[in-house]
Amino acid sequence: MSAPAAAPARPLPPAGPRKVAVLGAGSWGTTFAKVLADSARESAHAAAGPLDRTVVLWGRDAAAMDHAARTHVNDRYVPGIRLPERLVITSNLAAAVTGAALVVLAVPAQSLRSQLPAVAEHLGRDAVVLSLAKGLEQGTGLRMSEVVAEELGRATGLGPEHWQARTCVLSGPNLAMEIAEEQPTASVVAAPDAELATWVARACRTGYFRPYTNTDVVGTEIGGVVKNVIALSVGIADGRHFGENSKASIITRGLAETTRLALALGGKLETLSGLAGMGDLVATCSSPLSRNRTAGRLLGLGKSLAEVQEEMTQTAEGIKSAPAVLALARRHDVDMPITEAVVAILQEKIDVDDLAPLLLGRELKSEGTDS
Amino acid sequence: MSAPAAAPARPLPPAGPRKVAVLGAGSWGTTFAKVLADSARESAHAAAGPLDRTVVLWGRDAAAMDHAARTHVNDRYVPGIRLPERLVITSNLAAAVTGAALVVLAVPAQSLRSQLPAVAEHLGRDAVVLSLAKGLEQGTGLRMSEVVAEELGRATGLGPEHWQARTCVLSGPNLAMEIAEEQPTASVVAAPDAELATWVARACRTGYFRPYTNTDVVGTEIGGVVKNVIALSVGIADGRHFGENSKASIITRGLAETTRLALALGGKLETLSGLAGMGDLVATCSSPLSRNRTAGRLLGLGKSLAEVQEEMTQTAEGIKSAPAVLALARRHDVDMPITEAVVAILQEKIDVDDLAPLLLGRELKSEGTDS
Repeated sequence: MSAPAAAPARPLPPAGPRKVAVLGAGSWGTTFAKVLADSARESAHAAAGPLDRTVVLWGRDAAAMDHAARTHVNDRYVPGIRLPERLVITSNLAAAVTGAALVVLAVPAQSLRSQLPAVAEHLGRDAVVLSLAKGLEQGTGLRMSEVVAEELGRATGLGPEHWQARTCVLSGPNLAMEIAEEQPTASVVAAPDAELATWVARACRTGYFRPYTNTDVVGTEIGGVVKNVIALSVGIADGRHFGENSKASIITRGLAETTRLALALGGKLETLSGLAGMGDLVATCSSPLSRNRTAGRLLGLGKSLAEVQEEMTQTAEGIKSAPAVLALARRHDVDMPITEAVVAILQEKIDVDDLAPLLLGRELKSEGTDS
Repeated sequence: MSAPAAAPARPLPPAGPRKVAVLGAGSWGTTFAKVLADSARESAHAAAGPLDRTVVLWGRDAAAMDHAARTHVNDRYVPGIRLPERLVITSNLAAAVTGAALVVLAVPAQSLRSQLPAVAEHLGRDAVVLSLAKGLEQGTGLRMSEVVAEELGRATGLGPEHWQARTCVLSGPNLAMEIAEEQPTASVVAAPDAELATWVARACRTGYFRPYTNTDVVGTEIGGVVKNVIALSVGIADGRHFGENSKASIITRGLAETTRLALALGGKLETLSGLAGMGDLVATCSSPLSRNRTAGRLLGLGKSLAEVQEEMTQTAEGIKSAPAVLALARRHDVDMPITEAVVAILQEKIDVDDLAPLLLGRELKSEGTDS
């Protein structure tokens, strides 16, 4: 029973994929590979539908991957966490991708496009792609699922529509280290098709990780992108020693402007009010470990962007995405005062001390009409 | 130019009230009296419209009020904060209320009704009432503005409609101690009439306190009530050592169920997505000082309700309001699983360890239809 490429969800076996590859062995990629392997083990044990699923984690660094494969520990990114025995760890991309029914992209947003041609060489035409990357591409302003569809469409010769129909995203209040420690966590899988979303969700559902589903890819991605920008502004407020009242206002108004952008792009209100919008934003802004919040705090303490970038070993994605978010908002005539303030601070056009009046010092007015 | 009692907002002078009384000298009442006095000072200095406004703070405890009047410090409730010189502090209720154009009620929710008859004795028929109390009355399940209208209507003989039209509420991400320290804070004044809301907002606007306005009294009150119940559940999660992912999910789903209840009662979505809904909830759930979160944490650590109440000197309002919220939700056919779980824990019908599955362990499904 074969189906046309335009209806990719239908031919997928209801039991889930037999092979899953996770590309990118940073903290989130490694953690998500553990989730998939734990889910596979639980499925295999479940009387309802046994499924022997292989989960492969690929990372670029051969020495690190060899070490991780031997020890089943990835000490650099998820220190102290024992990875499942059934997880295959490799630095061989062809071995990871070949035959995978589900390919998970867990690489940084700004380097995603450059890695896709090599992935495409080994990718089956019926494979489903799940993006964990959160950001807008610098220069093009494209969302990650758009980058995937465009680049895989070109590299495979199947065109962007083929891949758009089979590209899903995962987002939510998902601090990786907590999931690695098996703290109970909920998440959202968004796919162009509800059945496809359920198929992907089933592959990563486990006792401590609960994926909900929707068909709002745009809203789910925008929530994940803009929260990094809002986390920067909350960090700046931290650095200026603002209290919880101010930070709660920034988070609230931050979600409001995120929602305005998502709606303008065709996203849905309930997505932004849900785990992939509010949930992700609140978790990120509550975590002292958030890279974006940390970068913001350093800015708030008066450091320059160059100093902040030097001080931090890992990327704060919000710094890269903020100008792209603002450009996208302007193209769609959406008012995003917090994003605007963050971009102005990053570009050193305004001082961090000008943030408070920008956020709170507006004219006395009705909150409802405040856009 | 006189107007009938049914249109109370019109005859109010645009410059604001000449006398304001705050009833209740706990941390929030005392802090809000400071806000009003600082606002009056700024108005008096403003070239645009000088206004000599008297602000009176009333508390029941004569010795404490005498001490505060002499020292301009209320050490028990806002330690270390110098109160404005122009603030009149008294334990004489008649002196406080007589001639006040705006009477602010800052007493605990469950004791509000019993104090209203004495207030009514001195209350002018054109006075405006602003409630800071957050809770549902035990037994009746009434919101505070309903209690005010009902009780003042009876005691003054003017009927509930007269007072309903002139009863406003204030709510938002307003941790009192931060406002006392003049940290920048936004808030919401809700009134049955937009002009009345603006009139009240103008009386409490100052450099560090920014009131927005709306006409959704129901939504504004419900946000302030249910956040205490959700803060209890976040506290329980704290006590069980849940991580930020879980807590962000609880906050997100908590706001969703709060919103469902508010909409069923005629409240507006944007109120709950705004400062009085999400903002207040996020601030309360982020503050380690929140009484409700603290009470929840003790419950989460395995203490009984009796032990928690013994350990805490001040009331955790959520404990009293939770059963009333659940009863209200049931009367309106609204599903509130988190509130339900909190009530069951308070009544010792389920164990705190059963909270996680109740919150996260539901069937794999679409988030959007999850009600």
